[in-house]
Amino acid sequence: MNALDYARQHYDRFVEELFDFLRIPSVSTEAARKQDIQRAANWLAAHCRHVGLERVEVFETPGHPIVYAEWLGAKGAPTVLVYGHYDVQPAEKADGWDTEPFTPAIRDGNIIARGATDDKGQLFVHLKAFEAFMQTAGTFPVNIKMLFEGEEETSSLNLGPFIDAHQDLLRADVAVISDTAMFEPGVPAIPYGLRGVVLTDLEVVGPANDLHSGMYGGTVHNPIHALSELIATMHGADGQVAIEGFYDAVRTLDDTEREQLAKIPYTEAVWQRETGAPQPWGEPAYSLIERIGARPTLDIVSIKGGFLGDGTKAIIPHKALAKLSCRLVPDQDPDMIIELIRHHVEAHTPPTVQATLTKLHTASPVLINRDNEAMQVAIEACEKVFGKKPIFLLVGGSIPVVTDFQHKLGLPTILLGFGLPDDNLHGPNEKFSIEQFQVGIQTMLTFYSLLPERVNQ
Amino acid sequence: MNALDYARQHYDRFVEELFDFLRIPSVSTEAARKQDIQRAANWLAAHCRHVGLERVEVFETPGHPIVYAEWLGAKGAPTVLVYGHYDVQPAEKADGWDTEPFTPAIRDGNIIARGATDDKGQLFVHLKAFEAFMQTAGTFPVNIKMLFEGEEETSSLNLGPFIDAHQDLLRADVAVISDTAMFEPGVPAIPYGLRGVVLTDLEVVGPANDLHSGMYGGTVHNPIHALSELIATMHGADGQVAIEGFYDAVRTLDDTEREQLAKIPYTEAVWQRETGAPQPWGEPAYSLIERIGARPTLDIVSIKGGFLGDGTKAIIPHKALAKLSCRLVPDQDPDMIIELIRHHVEAHTPPTVQATLTKLHTASPVLINRDNEAMQVAIEACEKVFGKKPIFLLVGGSIPVVTDFQHKLGLPTILLGFGLPDDNLHGPNEKFSIEQFQVGIQTMLTFYSLLPERVNQ
Repeated sequence: MNALDYARQHYDRFVEELFDFLRIPSVSTEAARKQDIQRAANWLAAHCRHVGLERVEVFETPGHPIVYAEWLGAKGAPTVLVYGHYDVQPAEKADGWDTEPFTPAIRDGNIIARGATDDKGQLFVHLKAFEAFMQTAGTFPVNIKMLFEGEEETSSLNLGPFIDAHQDLLRADVAVISDTAMFEPGVPAIPYGLRGVVLTDLEVVGPANDLHSGMYGGTVHNPIHALSELIATMHGADGQVAIEGFYDAVRTLDDTEREQLAKIPYTEAVWQRETGAPQPWGEPAYSLIERIGARPTLDIVSIKGGFLGDGTKAIIPHKALAKLSCRLVPDQDPDMIIELIRHHVEAHTPPTVQATLTKLHTASPVLINRDNEAMQVAIEACEKVFGKKPIFLLVGGSIPVVTDFQHKLGLPTILLGFGLPDDNLHGPNEKFSIEQFQVGIQTMLTFYSLLPERVNQ
Repeated sequence: MNALDYARQHYDRFVEELFDFLRIPSVSTEAARKQDIQRAANWLAAHCRHVGLERVEVFETPGHPIVYAEWLGAKGAPTVLVYGHYDVQPAEKADGWDTEPFTPAIRDGNIIARGATDDKGQLFVHLKAFEAFMQTAGTFPVNIKMLFEGEEETSSLNLGPFIDAHQDLLRADVAVISDTAMFEPGVPAIPYGLRGVVLTDLEVVGPANDLHSGMYGGTVHNPIHALSELIATMHGADGQVAIEGFYDAVRTLDDTEREQLAKIPYTEAVWQRETGAPQPWGEPAYSLIERIGARPTLDIVSIKGGFLGDGTKAIIPHKALAKLSCRLVPDQDPDMIIELIRHHVEAHTPPTVQATLTKLHTASPVLINRDNEAMQVAIEACEKVFGKKPIFLLVGGSIPVVTDFQHKLGLPTILLGFGLPDDNLHGPNEKFSIEQFQVGIQTMLTFYSLLPERVNQ
């Protein structure tokens, strides 16, 4: 029996095992979940041992643990560094889930659970591809190192220092990450650009305490108004970011890139189906796909002020708070962007309140070099499995580790993911199609098989 | 021993009893507190019986109970209807309290607890004045009816229907309410105008679900932006409400009123001490005291959107929600104001989102007639206790029952309160000065003693 036949025979069990992993609510953003994060790391380490990986270790960090595992029995073959993350975004049923987010369910051929596609289900593809080879051939075509972190959703703060401290351990020939989506079912996609990130708090403080809105309304500048007014200055009516200098460092797309992007059938109808929003918004001079991948954005991802429990508290609150997030593109510099926003906030804050911008984290935008043999193997593997070449995409999301792999380890990195655009990662009813899980395993079996012929150690 | 001496001997016990009342977290805005509300009503009814009131009854309503008690043994004397409310605003230590809000404490001569001044402590003044007379004279100078509701902080929805259904029970010659503040220590104040209220939800809905901000940022109009942009259109830079027609029905102050208001020493320094805000805001053509009492306002009292737990969720949220509250002055009509706001919202909502305004409750503004004998007695009682006449105020707050007393029962109503402007009702560390509690009892003893000579039954 070959590895693919083995996988086909065991798909049901693979899904059951994944369910165990998904049941652990490893939400890295919530302090109260620290034990669940630890439990997920331990579960993952145990599963690495179970499939035959060696030197499995749970490295403690100042934040959440990093799980490392390897198998280096393929003498003369190249070494692949696989990255994934076992932490997930927060989720509660009340957010709009049809079922409990940490009680995985199968509906319409999809695994429904927080983390199903981002990233527990996708990192599981690599573990199961490894198992399938080991259980049939008794060996794996390449040397493999697996690196799984628990802080991707909180900016990977401790991953950079870990990479610095473990350069030898992590030495490899190519890095592979499955944490992205295909273009649509049957159409694989390889992102070659990822947006960077800026995340800040924006706090507006008014009176020293919450005040009775009847007794002081009309004399005190309400911090909720002041914050809203400040946010309203940040975009023009056309959706352009109105922070002075915001677009100055943006790399212009060349004609070839625009042509390639124009070929991607990301129509308004597709966008409409995915978002359910009334109509598109944003920079009129750019197509939807360009706005997402090639243009920077500024979003307020949360806002709060006043009494947020049941009912109403008739107050002018002491303060109001927003979280501001930018997605950056080459060659924007995150710290420079923060300074531009800070300048804008200072210039637009009236003397009736105080506004403070606090940096929470940043990640630089990244462009991936497509001109290497490993990328050719990825393209070939896609052709074999899907019968067509992958689409190369500029994507809107950010995967902080890619920069580190490029700059610290000098590794060509391939983003070969098997999610679908409507997986609703970060939202309610996150899903991972069982069929995508299966073609993912099939694609990785093919990729790992082809790699030794084409990439020198 | 006369009633005042009795009160002086028992002030410490009075405060201890009040502490028991304050320990019950009767927060009417929170569904989870329903049992505590019931407990507070029962405690209050038991205490009414304890001080010698008769026909004590806890009336159930579709919402929270109404407590009624009376003593009608003063043949030939007038009847006073006392109103108070035993429900309180929400409070949690994390809001900035130095001590637990429902564990009353004494600091610097003040009772610190949620409800200390608004309104448990102030309604207690009347119960203790009644007790002091009954325990010394064995009788009370006037007939008295006490009406305590549990929904003042949630708009008194069931009080109007109760008054309609119990006109005979509530028949009286004058109504007295202690639910306001003096001007400052030693300077009594009687409000003669109260602002009305409009409270609405304002919801902005964008995409069908929360979306990944990296994958859709730049193409979807973020509901937090859209709501902020909408809120920003509601005031001009000068603090004027920018809703078309908002001020049309506002009654102009006459010269005498403006002169009287100008005499009130509510300086910017006083305002600054009370609010701690950087500098005043609001309509430049009106003084601070005019803005609070004589001008209408529009405030966003709360706002929320996106993930509000620990950490950050990188999303464009499905929706964002604000609560909008107006304080109205004569002769503004609450329903008309809601229509004006609705029109403004419709005119300023872009096609990229949907905005919905939902009425939550309204109360009409009210002007109190000062030309009656009971008001003269109140003035005289203030002169006897404080050595000076009370200041007549237009105040910013709203007490919904006043309109009902005027229109449904035809009662002259006197707002004789003993709080202080810095009591921080609705905010953290709400307080009621023990000295104010004592002068309150003294003033009411005086008022009730003088009333029979001057007001005919």
